[in-house]
Amino acid sequence: MVSEVNLKLKEKQQGRVLENRGRLLVKCPDKPGIVSVLSTFLHNHGSNIIESSQYSSDPENGTFFIRIEFHCENLLVKRAQLEEDFAEIAANHSMDFHFAYSNERMRSAIYVSKEPHCLMELLWEWQNGDLDTDIVVVISNHEEARPLVESLGIPFHYIPANKEIRKQVEAEQIRLMDEYNVDLLILARYMQILTPDFVRHFENRIINIHHSFLPAFIGAGPYERAFERGVKLIGATSHYVTNDLDEGPIIEQDVERVDHRNDVIDLKKIGRQIERRVLARAVKWHLENRIIVEGNKTIVFH
Amino acid sequence: MVSEVNLKLKEKQQGRVLENRGRLLVKCPDKPGIVSVLSTFLHNHGSNIIESSQYSSDPENGTFFIRIEFHCENLLVKRAQLEEDFAEIAANHSMDFHFAYSNERMRSAIYVSKEPHCLMELLWEWQNGDLDTDIVVVISNHEEARPLVESLGIPFHYIPANKEIRKQVEAEQIRLMDEYNVDLLILARYMQILTPDFVRHFENRIINIHHSFLPAFIGAGPYERAFERGVKLIGATSHYVTNDLDEGPIIEQDVERVDHRNDVIDLKKIGRQIERRVLARAVKWHLENRIIVEGNKTIVFH
Amino acid sequence: MVSEVNLKLKEKQQGRVLENRGRLLVKCPDKPGIVSVLSTFLHNHGSNIIESSQYSSDPENGTFFIRIEFHCENLLVKRAQLEEDFAEIAANHSMDFHFAYSNERMRSAIYVSKEPHCLMELLWEWQNGDLDTDIVVVISNHEEARPLVESLGIPFHYIPANKEIRKQVEAEQIRLMDEYNVDLLILARYMQILTPDFVRHFENRIINIHHSFLPAFIGAGPYERAFERGVKLIGATSHYVTNDLDEGPIIEQDVERVDHRNDVIDLKKIGRQIERRVLARAVKWHLENRIIVEGNKTIVFH
Amino acid sequence: MVSEVNLKLKEKQQGRVLENRGRLLVKCPDKPGIVSVLSTFLHNHGSNIIESSQYSSDPENGTFFIRIEFHCENLLVKRAQLEEDFAEIAANHSMDFHFAYSNERMRSAIYVSKEPHCLMELLWEWQNGDLDTDIVVVISNHEEARPLVESLGIPFHYIPANKEIRKQVEAEQIRLMDEYNVDLLILARYMQILTPDFVRHFENRIINIHHSFLPAFIGAGPYERAFERGVKLIGATSHYVTNDLDEGPIIEQDVERVDHRNDVIDLKKIGRQIERRVLARAVKWHLENRIIVEGNKTIVFH
Repeated sequence: MVSEVNLKLKEKQQGRVLENRGRLLVKCPDKPGIVSVLSTFLHNHGSNIIESSQYSSDPENGTFFIRIEFHCENLLVKRAQLEEDFAEIAANHSMDFHFAYSNERMRSAIYVSKEPHCLMELLWEWQNGDLDTDIVVVISNHEEARPLVESLGIPFHYIPANKEIRKQVEAEQIRLMDEYNVDLLILARYMQILTPDFVRHFENRIINIHHSFLPAFIGAGPYERAFERGVKLIGATSHYVTNDLDEGPIIEQDVERVDHRNDVIDLKKIGRQIERRVLARAVKWHLENRIIVEGNKTIVFH
Repeated sequence: MVSEVNLKLKEKQQGRVLENRGRLLVKCPDKPGIVSVLSTFLHNHGSNIIESSQYSSDPENGTFFIRIEFHCENLLVKRAQLEEDFAEIAANHSMDFHFAYSNERMRSAIYVSKEPHCLMELLWEWQNGDLDTDIVVVISNHEEARPLVESLGIPFHYIPANKEIRKQVEAEQIRLMDEYNVDLLILARYMQILTPDFVRHFENRIINIHHSFLPAFIGAGPYERAFERGVKLIGATSHYVTNDLDEGPIIEQDVERVDHRNDVIDLKKIGRQIERRVLARAVKWHLENRIIVEGNKTIVFH
Repeated sequence: MVSEVNLKLKEKQQGRVLENRGRLLVKCPDKPGIVSVLSTFLHNHGSNIIESSQYSSDPENGTFFIRIEFHCENLLVKRAQLEEDFAEIAANHSMDFHFAYSNERMRSAIYVSKEPHCLMELLWEWQNGDLDTDIVVVISNHEEARPLVESLGIPFHYIPANKEIRKQVEAEQIRLMDEYNVDLLILARYMQILTPDFVRHFENRIINIHHSFLPAFIGAGPYERAFERGVKLIGATSHYVTNDLDEGPIIEQDVERVDHRNDVIDLKKIGRQIERRVLARAVKWHLENRIIVEGNKTIVFH
Repeated sequence: MVSEVNLKLKEKQQGRVLENRGRLLVKCPDKPGIVSVLSTFLHNHGSNIIESSQYSSDPENGTFFIRIEFHCENLLVKRAQLEEDFAEIAANHSMDFHFAYSNERMRSAIYVSKEPHCLMELLWEWQNGDLDTDIVVVISNHEEARPLVESLGIPFHYIPANKEIRKQVEAEQIRLMDEYNVDLLILARYMQILTPDFVRHFENRIINIHHSFLPAFIGAGPYERAFERGVKLIGATSHYVTNDLDEGPIIEQDVERVDHRNDVIDLKKIGRQIERRVLARAVKWHLENRIIVEGNKTIVFH
């Protein structure tokens, strides 16, 4: 009982603390003194750095990336001033930057086709309090997931889709994303190809799970082809969606061991286990603003 | 002290028991009663089954594979009769088969170029008593490994190699393999391409380590390309060499996690750790007759 | 679409084949010829061995264990004769044995307290067709899980429990196990201690998940103690329940990496992920008759 | 060839850069502005932060830990002034701190008894350039390792040891540690118990490898006891040595899967593979000043 009580207390405490948590992501040309500039700025604005991770692509003439998580009393009140003041610093140092606030949860839409395992994993993690997001809508080109989704009070939109009606489908989807004010699109085994227009509209905001250990078995039927090739490990890859199909920046990958006894059906079952945990991790890191996309790669600050 | 003594005793005991150990590998069309035929045959020849592993590609009309490890008093004496009698059974059931005897250790040759890590791992495992083989010769197109190899009393042959003189080089290598009566060729980071003639000469008897998680990054510069692609796991693959470069039957694969902080040099270092353990495992399983090649795949009876 | 259709077809096909699948588990004193006896018996009864795994604790004077999976046309019809005939062989060779038939699914009861993650995982795997069992009843000393369980059409029994009323509680539980004709009891984070009488009543038929990498942190508060000790890996263990609390035969264990940044709440979250997959694996192996208990250990034929 | 050349060039480049690399470790009471103080100090002293990792045990009233890796032109010249100036800051903020410089490699002594696998792994990593240390002496209570050690030009001291002569033995060892000016003592399967005096003399500077997944199987015969218990994973633990035998702060742990077929000899072989990689990792992190000991735990900044 004691530990249960402690857990509750701690969560409440975290809730309170988190109200005043902010995250600052910065990308800029590397030069001496940037950490000093940023940390001094935050200190002068009453913010205490809780966690900080940085990376420089090259100590000389490289690009500098930093993610700072900070605590600031009355952050909601001070926030506008903070951002206004920071804009000046950013201009001086050619910084790309982004502020995120723990009390502003990202709004996520999940896209799913027939296979529900990734959707279920995300809903599970979300119910458990492990995904810090509001799942505001589920979109599917099949009706199967409706009962599960609606039983959790989440709106479900059935939008049949195929190659011929892609444009209308995407127009409707974009309309819904706007209506629900969606920040992140999660393709949880959504088996439709997206047009370049759609992808551009949500740049670095669409996360896909690919049922293969990329770049092996790009394209269709990866488990069938893994079986044919006789591989001893199969994997899955989560990545941001770009217009190079299956080629977007990789966020996370994982594998499991298989052997000669496993047929294609086994590989798919094992694969589903990998897919659901790989996608859930990628989504979690995105929600915690732990990922910076740089070219065709990601920097993930664990 | 007690455990040391026990260890010694156990090893001696194993040594004694192993003198009378045999292994029978069979591949044949699947049909009812094969296990009965085999086990009855062995029992009638005074052999006790110690370990047995089987696999059927398809219960109906498939191919049946079995590996049986057995113990038989005075096996060396009975062996000729055993094989002679088995030939009849094999003919009746269209069996491909192979007998191996624990007192006849396979004779291995290691091929290496400049990078010594896989060679060192194999020599280490061998000194430790973990590789049940006689390493009878090391072949290299560089001189670097000579001192290490010769310090262990193993003959070292330096055979410079390049594209132009490939035929002469391979002729000399085949001559040496014959002279040393070699059963298994281990390419421990040997960076020369082998001709179809050479490969055919040692069918399913050349094991290579490929510095990539096949089938991703086939060909040259896999770590450079893994870096470019921004993968989150890198791997290595051991496989039998066929004339499809990098496409032979996969024996074993493994991976390690990497991240954005790792440059190409890091990937190579991490890769070397994977390569050495993946190659050592594959060689060990081959020496224990645990691998059956079937088409472009392997059946590995662990 | 094609793969979906293939999947369905394959499953149906499997369904058909599986109707005539049997499993035979045998334990007996090791002596030469046992495999021959068993395989000849099965062959003479029209059965084809599909998979066979064996283990001998010691080639001389040891105990022999074997699991054979076989296919037999009209198995349901022949089954009585098969068992009757086998009884004679078993007597001759002092065999303990057990026949199981694929068309007779085991009947499972799940016990749960407040934490639902293991229950949810089992229900998920079961819905997915990955747990070959009938989940016939869920027992809990809390009401929380009722909606989920009943939404799947599974009877849910709320039986409040505590130290004082343990005897009555267990009497009621035994009555229910009889009523539902339960083969396997799965303690999916059921936080009540069982009496020796109860445990004896279901010998080797109660699987528990222990939230620790046994034998480290036996007893209460394992995550708290793992945190105090500063371990770098945490784990979970599934085991058969015996009257040595937390000391029953281990079926499966797994671990995940943690570090100094993880507080007790994190450890519990990570631990839940391990617990659910470790329990699911153990249950799956039990349902496939892959486990033989020998003393305080398990032999698991993967 | 190209990649070989690049490698060489890169290594040289790294060599040059590393001449001016420093590391600053700080531990102090947490309060706002510390990162700003430290980063501003370094910037004002011409130092550019390359990598920075921090941890706070509790955002309010906790302890703050940071590891900063920085680059500074002419660091060797500026170093004295840097440390002198920093002393003032440290005093103002109650900081424990430590500067390390990449051109001052730590000096390591390896202690070994009969089993050479951990020694061999360390020497291998060291030859490979993966352990940034000078291995200045090897101490053993057996003669077995002498040829290997001396063949690499490392002094080898044979000091027979047992319970009765422990005091003299340790006096001699301390004398040698002084003579060789040793920073780090690595117990690479050194099977002698150390006295509290000896341990105190080298506080947080002795790293041991324990052949078990602590805290399971503390004490003697862990593999024998793991076998008896029937565990499905075995592990190893590297830790700093304190006077609580097997209870010092854990640096790293890892495990491998085992099963019922593995006897004690197998477990030991598998265990040796785990031991060597776990010890090598711990030593590497120590040499890179990535570890801070806090009470009975470690903070490891990867």
